[in-house]
Amino acid sequence: MRIALDVMGTDQCPTPDIAGAILAAKTYGYKIYMVGDQQKIEQELKQHTIAGLPLEVVPAADTILPTDKPSAVGKGKPQSSMHIGMNLVKDGEADAFVTMGNTGAAHAIATLFTLKRIEGVKRPALSGIFPVAGNYIVMLDLGANADSKPDWLLQFGLMGSIYASNALNLASPRIGLLSNGEEEGKGNQLIRDADQLYRQSTLNYVGNVEPKEVMHGKAEVIVADGFLGNIFVKTFESSVTLLVQTIREEIKADLPSMLGGLMLKPAFGRVRKRTDTFEVGGAPLLGVNGVVIIGHGRSNAVAVKNAIHQAAIAVEGRVIDTIRQGLREI
Amino acid sequence: MRIALDVMGTDQCPTPDIAGAILAAKTYGYKIYMVGDQQKIEQELKQHTIAGLPLEVVPAADTILPTDKPSAVGKGKPQSSMHIGMNLVKDGEADAFVTMGNTGAAHAIATLFTLKRIEGVKRPALSGIFPVAGNYIVMLDLGANADSKPDWLLQFGLMGSIYASNALNLASPRIGLLSNGEEEGKGNQLIRDADQLYRQSTLNYVGNVEPKEVMHGKAEVIVADGFLGNIFVKTFESSVTLLVQTIREEIKADLPSMLGGLMLKPAFGRVRKRTDTFEVGGAPLLGVNGVVIIGHGRSNAVAVKNAIHQAAIAVEGRVIDTIRQGLREI
Repeated sequence: MRIALDVMGTDQCPTPDIAGAILAAKTYGYKIYMVGDQQKIEQELKQHTIAGLPLEVVPAADTILPTDKPSAVGKGKPQSSMHIGMNLVKDGEADAFVTMGNTGAAHAIATLFTLKRIEGVKRPALSGIFPVAGNYIVMLDLGANADSKPDWLLQFGLMGSIYASNALNLASPRIGLLSNGEEEGKGNQLIRDADQLYRQSTLNYVGNVEPKEVMHGKAEVIVADGFLGNIFVKTFESSVTLLVQTIREEIKADLPSMLGGLMLKPAFGRVRKRTDTFEVGGAPLLGVNGVVIIGHGRSNAVAVKNAIHQAAIAVEGRVIDTIRQGLREI
Repeated sequence: MRIALDVMGTDQCPTPDIAGAILAAKTYGYKIYMVGDQQKIEQELKQHTIAGLPLEVVPAADTILPTDKPSAVGKGKPQSSMHIGMNLVKDGEADAFVTMGNTGAAHAIATLFTLKRIEGVKRPALSGIFPVAGNYIVMLDLGANADSKPDWLLQFGLMGSIYASNALNLASPRIGLLSNGEEEGKGNQLIRDADQLYRQSTLNYVGNVEPKEVMHGKAEVIVADGFLGNIFVKTFESSVTLLVQTIREEIKADLPSMLGGLMLKPAFGRVRKRTDTFEVGGAPLLGVNGVVIIGHGRSNAVAVKNAIHQAAIAVEGRVIDTIRQGLREI
């Protein structure tokens, strides 16, 4: 297994990225191409003992920043670690590409400049993997396509379910359309049209799902257009943040509350762990012609290692080939 | 002040509805028309001392259930307490209508069968009032129009800001469009087109707002189409429910956590109060030709009383006339 890792991805790059690469090489024996600023990488490697590990440095002159506009980097930074890492996959020198960097940039560079789409894919989609009801769900599109068409949503469901079964090991994942009500006929025009396409397809479709049904795990693959999907995830995150902040403030209000808060520290830690997405590492960019996993900018070394492992599982699960075939049979 | 109250609205109707009517009559001296099943109302009134209070029973043969389809009740239950209560407003016998009942039904009956639209309103919108950052915000549309047009979204902002300033007492409320990013040019086609209309208008428009900015109170009036607005509110509610449930489970995991949980009970109670929407009573249906306030089915007597008070404030604030005039100047 050969993984091209963009080591310029995390907010603290390249420190956690390189530590994650080393961890993955040690744990799984994967060959890791560490793509990025050669000087910074070599400086960082002095902190580690890497003799005998299957690591290789691949220099990249440009670095993409979290603040870079996705529309500008494709042509503007052609020697970025994303371009070079993805081209290793395109050229068959690596089996998958992993980055913790700018999601929009990775999408643009993969779709338009390097790997391009799998034949037959109308639009690649950004996905997310979230812990729900003791399991994982795949949600897509999280923002690649703000305005979508019904047949794109159908393909998102196909790609998401193939990823869920081949890489997340979920048996016959159910697909649901995120909507404002579960009854048939709910939703806007896009959802009602997509619903019809799903009903005519061979996919394991369970109909509309409301937000609370998403949280209860009514389906393992949740499909939405990129505008709604992005707002859904941001609303979830900011709702949790708001509630946690309100609880924090009220815990500080008086002494008994502060004591109670101290006693609950381990419980709150477990709550955080249960709602944490780091465990899985990252989420796939589905529909491009190669395995691409995008993780959080805040990832630590373990999260980077997990993302690399996740990429390897997607390669072993033959996700790309299965999508290519599925598109012909949908 | 004369309020027509649908006493068949709450899940426990007519008990909390009638108790709320009595509370409002006692507290504010409003004349309350209690519209509903005459027998049930008279039975319930035996539990109360109401001599001298400005209460009047108005019989209604039909009752709308929470499960009734909005599209079916307009013609299907023409003698409902909603029809009769709204017609009291239409005929000038009451100043406002209040219900804790089926939101979709109230919208359909108001828009198509009784009060109809204010002249110039393209589509009435369901609104919600939420406690945010120590203040209230008005959000609309929460589900009346799944597919909307840019000029409808413009009117929603006008109506929401008039309600916010005239009934919620918010000085020069800021209007924001719910979007997936705050930068100009973010959003889907609908949002980008509405953004252009807002920029050409005289409204106090602050641009796109992301979910986290909604929670931080960047604007007092949040505008979305009914599909997105509905999913946003449902996502907020179900995210909070999921987190609270996870915390509850982890508190029960061991003895120290249980003790800590007990000590935090008052703090959790304060958190609940701060995220509670009952205090304000209900939310207006904006764009119909009369003040209509719709509250929660789970409302207790105090929430019903608050909704009645809220309706009176909207009447005193001349919300309907101001919207009529604002539509000509937008």
